[in-house]
Amino acid sequence: MPNPTAAMIVIGDEILAGRTRDSNLHQLAGRLAETGIDLVEARVIADSPGAIVAAVQELSGRHDHVFTSGGIGPTHDDITADCVARALGAAIDVRDDARAILQAHYDATGKELTEARLRMARIPEGAELIGNPVSAAPGFTLRNVHVMAGVPRIFEAMLAGLLPALPGGRPRISDTLRVERPESELAGPLRRLAGEMPDLTFGSYPFEEGSRYGANIVVRGADAATVAAGMERLRALFEDDFAG
Amino acid sequence: MPNPTAAMIVIGDEILAGRTRDSNLHQLAGRLAETGIDLVEARVIADSPGAIVAAVQELSGRHDHVFTSGGIGPTHDDITADCVARALGAAIDVRDDARAILQAHYDATGKELTEARLRMARIPEGAELIGNPVSAAPGFTLRNVHVMAGVPRIFEAMLAGLLPALPGGRPRISDTLRVERPESELAGPLRRLAGEMPDLTFGSYPFEEGSRYGANIVVRGADAATVAAGMERLRALFEDDFAG
Repeated sequence: MPNPTAAMIVIGDEILAGRTRDSNLHQLAGRLAETGIDLVEARVIADSPGAIVAAVQELSGRHDHVFTSGGIGPTHDDITADCVARALGAAIDVRDDARAILQAHYDATGKELTEARLRMARIPEGAELIGNPVSAAPGFTLRNVHVMAGVPRIFEAMLAGLLPALPGGRPRISDTLRVERPESELAGPLRRLAGEMPDLTFGSYPFEEGSRYGANIVVRGADAATVAAGMERLRALFEDDFAG
Repeated sequence: MPNPTAAMIVIGDEILAGRTRDSNLHQLAGRLAETGIDLVEARVIADSPGAIVAAVQELSGRHDHVFTSGGIGPTHDDITADCVARALGAAIDVRDDARAILQAHYDATGKELTEARLRMARIPEGAELIGNPVSAAPGFTLRNVHVMAGVPRIFEAMLAGLLPALPGGRPRISDTLRVERPESELAGPLRRLAGEMPDLTFGSYPFEEGSRYGANIVVRGADAATVAAGMERLRALFEDDFAG
């Protein structure tokens, strides 16, 4: 059975404007790879209702899971929850379970649950809450769309709570050979090897580190023995360059 | 006149698999903001012909510019040039001008222009070359699609050569007020202010730095005087918290 597939939607004007550097994609990609869910595409879109609704509709129809980050705070530009509800045709309002979580949090910190803060209890009908151990305000899962915060520490904590509940597939097996030789010298042998071992994929990712350069050749496959066989062939080909 | 719009396509299995962290999006976003070209969306997609062709067709039809990074090296998984040509209905083959650049480069370094290296001279008919001062192999512009390398240093150098040739718009004016107060306390006043100053947008981006937290409020607009007026109103609202 093929692995479940996933897409990510990063919601954030500030990333597109070059002010903030997203780190949630890298975090999600790494965790999904361990889980055996294949991240197939990611999009960074603006804080705009049209863009959010369109991306959620398109990607939730195409993948087993969609993960969003950003836009679920208390300010007027936090429109993700309402847009996801609209995209999937769900009603949305302040929900009692989410309100109770916020109430307990603000009671404990001696603060008031203001109208602005109550916005963070707007949860679509039928959604499951995603816990937020950092700052209480929950994310949610509506059908196959998982809505999480943009602040990296909260995103990471929500994801850690969410992932064990999702049925994963087989983690992809991969191994990497680092070769300090120009990629253009590896290309011919690598292409032939890829043709001879059709159960594996061979990716070549050039690197530069000061005056050293070369490529990381990544072998991927469904089982460890085949990947190991691919690595052995690779080492034999590029033995002189083997550096780890 | 509105600014030109742009989209980015990051081509890279290795980013979706969590092995590599993309930095070209952040680089492009910053440079475009200075240039007055509005980056409206970005996608990270797999090294797959179907995904590349579909993304290029969709985004080149919707935006003034599309910038791609990745997949133009010499190995079998470098398929971007051929996919962009196919997406836009252009013929592609080894082109004499690109071959001459590579020939000169390899002559100078005492190396042979092998068949694998010649792949990097595959350039679509009608495309303009984008210079590569780092490692010679050129990128190209085909219609409104700018195809560049994935290695960050090369991407940055290609972009530096390309951007001055693109007609820009008005750089967006923005200024930021850092407020060390929970976003939920800022939300109400901020929403009212945004309603009163419709020529400006007010974005609120929460931060956490150890035990300090708050929000960066970013004011954006078309001219400096209006943005300055917005900043003044913001400071008056959140004066006690003004920290820069």
